Amino acid sequence: MLRLNADVGESFGIWSMGLDTELIPWLDQANIACGFHASDPLIMQKTVQLTLTHSVSIGAHPSYPDLQGFGRRSLSITNAELIALLRYQIGALQAIAQAEGAKVDYVKPHGALYNDMMKNPELLLAVMQALDGLNQQQDSPLALMLLCQADNQSVATLAAPYQLPLIFEAFADRRYLANGQLSPRSQPDAVFHQPEQILQQGLSLAQFQQVETAEGPLTLAADSLCVHGDNASSVAVVAELKQALLALKDAAPNASRVR
Amino acid sequence: MLRLNADVGESFGIWSMGLDTELIPWLDQANIACGFHASDPLIMQKTVQLTLTHSVSIGAHPSYPDLQGFGRRSLSITNAELIALLRYQIGALQAIAQAEGAKVDYVKPHGALYNDMMKNPELLLAVMQALDGLNQQQDSPLALMLLCQADNQSVATLAAPYQLPLIFEAFADRRYLANGQLSPRSQPDAVFHQPEQILQQGLSLAQFQQVETAEGPLTLAADSLCVHGDNASSVAVVAELKQALLALKDAAPNASRVR
Amino acid sequence: MLRLNADVGESFGIWSMGLDTELIPWLDQANIACGFHASDPLIMQKTVQLTLTHSVSIGAHPSYPDLQGFGRRSLSITNAELIALLRYQIGALQAIAQAEGAKVDYVKPHGALYNDMMKNPELLLAVMQALDGLNQQQDSPLALMLLCQADNQSVATLAAPYQLPLIFEAFADRRYLANGQLSPRSQPDAVFHQPEQILQQGLSLAQFQQVETAEGPLTLAADSLCVHGDNASSVAVVAELKQALLALKDAAPNASRVR
Amino acid sequence: MLRLNADVGESFGIWSMGLDTELIPWLDQANIACGFHASDPLIMQKTVQLTLTHSVSIGAHPSYPDLQGFGRRSLSITNAELIALLRYQIGALQAIAQAEGAKVDYVKPHGALYNDMMKNPELLLAVMQALDGLNQQQDSPLALMLLCQADNQSVATLAAPYQLPLIFEAFADRRYLANGQLSPRSQPDAVFHQPEQILQQGLSLAQFQQVETAEGPLTLAADSLCVHGDNASSVAVVAELKQALLALKDAAPNASRVR
Repeated sequence: MLRLNADVGESFGIWSMGLDTELIPWLDQANIACGFHASDPLIMQKTVQLTLTHSVSIGAHPSYPDLQGFGRRSLSITNAELIALLRYQIGALQAIAQAEGAKVDYVKPHGALYNDMMKNPELLLAVMQALDGLNQQQDSPLALMLLCQADNQSVATLAAPYQLPLIFEAFADRRYLANGQLSPRSQPDAVFHQPEQILQQGLSLAQFQQVETAEGPLTLAADSLCVHGDNASSVAVVAELKQALLALKDAAPNASRVR
Repeated sequence: MLRLNADVGESFGIWSMGLDTELIPWLDQANIACGFHASDPLIMQKTVQLTLTHSVSIGAHPSYPDLQGFGRRSLSITNAELIALLRYQIGALQAIAQAEGAKVDYVKPHGALYNDMMKNPELLLAVMQALDGLNQQQDSPLALMLLCQADNQSVATLAAPYQLPLIFEAFADRRYLANGQLSPRSQPDAVFHQPEQILQQGLSLAQFQQVETAEGPLTLAADSLCVHGDNASSVAVVAELKQALLALKDAAPNASRVR
Repeated sequence: MLRLNADVGESFGIWSMGLDTELIPWLDQANIACGFHASDPLIMQKTVQLTLTHSVSIGAHPSYPDLQGFGRRSLSITNAELIALLRYQIGALQAIAQAEGAKVDYVKPHGALYNDMMKNPELLLAVMQALDGLNQQQDSPLALMLLCQADNQSVATLAAPYQLPLIFEAFADRRYLANGQLSPRSQPDAVFHQPEQILQQGLSLAQFQQVETAEGPLTLAADSLCVHGDNASSVAVVAELKQALLALKDAAPNASRVR
Repeated sequence: MLRLNADVGESFGIWSMGLDTELIPWLDQANIACGFHASDPLIMQKTVQLTLTHSVSIGAHPSYPDLQGFGRRSLSITNAELIALLRYQIGALQAIAQAEGAKVDYVKPHGALYNDMMKNPELLLAVMQALDGLNQQQDSPLALMLLCQADNQSVATLAAPYQLPLIFEAFADRRYLANGQLSPRSQPDAVFHQPEQILQQGLSLAQFQQVETAEGPLTLAADSLCVHGDNASSVAVVAELKQALLALKDAAPNASRVR
């Protein structure tokens, strides 16, 4: 079954963001910000508590260090720096989760770091090594959540030596280009705001592993479906989306898996 | 045997501080800064590697969030904030240590936070609760390193419900007042700079659990002796101090213990 | 005439706060955050542009360095540090204003710094010295906006040697205690949320220089009335309040002055 | 006469950097860090005081916001963000200087921002616009200090519409490539550490407007000569260099000019 994930815990100090209390109850996987692009220790703790209440799997959502730019600005750092700052953020969330009796299951890099690693295999390799170093010493390994593409083979090949579990995500509320990439946010119709459109793309991904593009259908074999908590239309439709996914699961109960 | 500890890993970015490579080989316990008053993820990683090379026990050295003030300025935060930010910093170091095959054994709060918790039992309780939350889920509990006083009973009583291991530290290179407190750094002779004086106070603590004050000897039943890595005289004498402690241990082999 | 002021420009990066576009058109004086408790250079620039559009006087609203705590947490800094960081923030806003053809007229410290300086004359003196250093070299001196108390004499005496213009502010939407202090925010009724109540206290201050307290009327000879942009009821009533103040002015045209 | 400039005030909080007290007495122009890659308000104030004592012209040395990376990591920001953050930093230093009775004469961007603007005319234009906005309202305009190249015409053409004064700097202690660029710091011999070599290149630039490269002499018509305060050899030779420049001036007194 296709899972449902969202970026959550992206408030900072006094500033609020996202509709976490409305969104989290419907999620399978919550990507929790770790203080470098959003969040702070207390918000991380409260967000972990909310995911526990609703039995949602916890992912760390680390970023370049850039609160002012919300982690959406590329920063040219070395691989060694990247590896260390990923472990720093993941560990910070792990401890906060641990004290609540929870644990971190996976890692999804945020914003510019996410985009950069999908474009740059060397950077993606560094991300994988950051996780591998932790997984060598943990009973249950951290998985890496990343962008589902038309062809996921090169990514899988990169991860194979580390036996790193991968979670491929697709987007219910973002327009896809024919080449399998997301339409850039600078485009006017890059983000869907019609609930029906979000629901339809989500269900198409769940049932047929397909999305529509300007040049015809695109196949995306995703494990998880991302909805955006700062998109009111996505939040409005998330309950319906979750129930539709559950109905599909009952109809065809072969569960999707973390690879 | 009285152990030897020091605050290390207190460089930040391009800025260097302390003589870690000279100091760490002689330590039993290294208090590693966690990025809030000093250090950054890469420096934390390198410092962990250095402690591993020399088989030194690793402590987290968390702080108020105050890089500019080096954590030496009190910040009025709530207990809930304090608990969350301690776990954040401890976890960050734990993950970085874990990836190197090491682990964090204890926690010593830094600077203004250290002073504030020794004065304010409510704050000290919050520190203990921060550790207890982590210890509930860990095989080997984190100990708390704090200031050895003439009477450690009230601190021990506070820690008892949590079965929190305590490490009491005394200072080889700081002058003590008759009431058992450290002479404030604002006093001209608060920090010893004569190697002989540092050595003498260290050995007196090791052999007789005593320091001299203006009003006579003071008894301090310490588990660990702190030397300052930014005090060149302390670094100069650390090898001699360590060898003297080892010699005492051979003479009277009943080991000091983490309580 | 009693002026109307509010704290504005308190968004940060992607995070929004306050209803600046609705509030600023009705203000006489806008206290613009300077990046230490809120705001960033681009938000400062946009806020300056908004005040220019509506011919609102610009005040710098500097703070302790504490984005995460929104400047509401006391930080123990030296007077020398305080003086330097006030000038830093004021100058940053001055340059941004200057490039828009605007200028900074006054300074109102924020949050914990505001409270601390009203309690601690030594700190207040440092704030005054920070401004005096700038005023020595400027044609039109910066004024200091601070809390109007039952007796403003001691503050005026402190400012006299610097010939520092003072702006005393009172609050339309905060409850006062009989001793002239604000009811702490921890009290349930410390902030008014009934538009009528806000309007009434504002008008009482304008007409009679009085507010009601539990123990009877309190005289407050204020120059400016503060409304809170994050209090929806205050924003709802601000237009009405401004028009009432203008009507009073027409009736009795002796203008209030910056002392 | 060729002037002498250096980056100064690059300590941060408790961490020290550079030999400012030894270097500043010999400088004509001091590029003072503004808190985004190094320095803090108090260090800025002390550095301004030092330049005043020695009658050194003050330049603002603004940067990308990146303390941890010392401003040496490129950050992808918009031109609007860049313009605002430059004015923020320049204004912060202007106010601190103003309170000391000094003023800021010019601006030299730092590190990655300096390199990026020399490669990217669009970014350089944004830097110029940031200064132009301030210069419209100032009696004496801020100049822009930037890299002297074999051909400075394209830079001068870009600056002409703004009547922006330019200061072209060359380096006494860096190796040049035949194409007029600096040998990257990743190369082993990119920075000179032999005092004679630094002195010789400095004098060659002063007398003949030339440096030697692997492929022969390169002409560089520089206004100012940069020495690095963190290069002990540069600091060792700075007095001699200054005296040689003064001797040249006496021999041929046609002063170099800010264009």
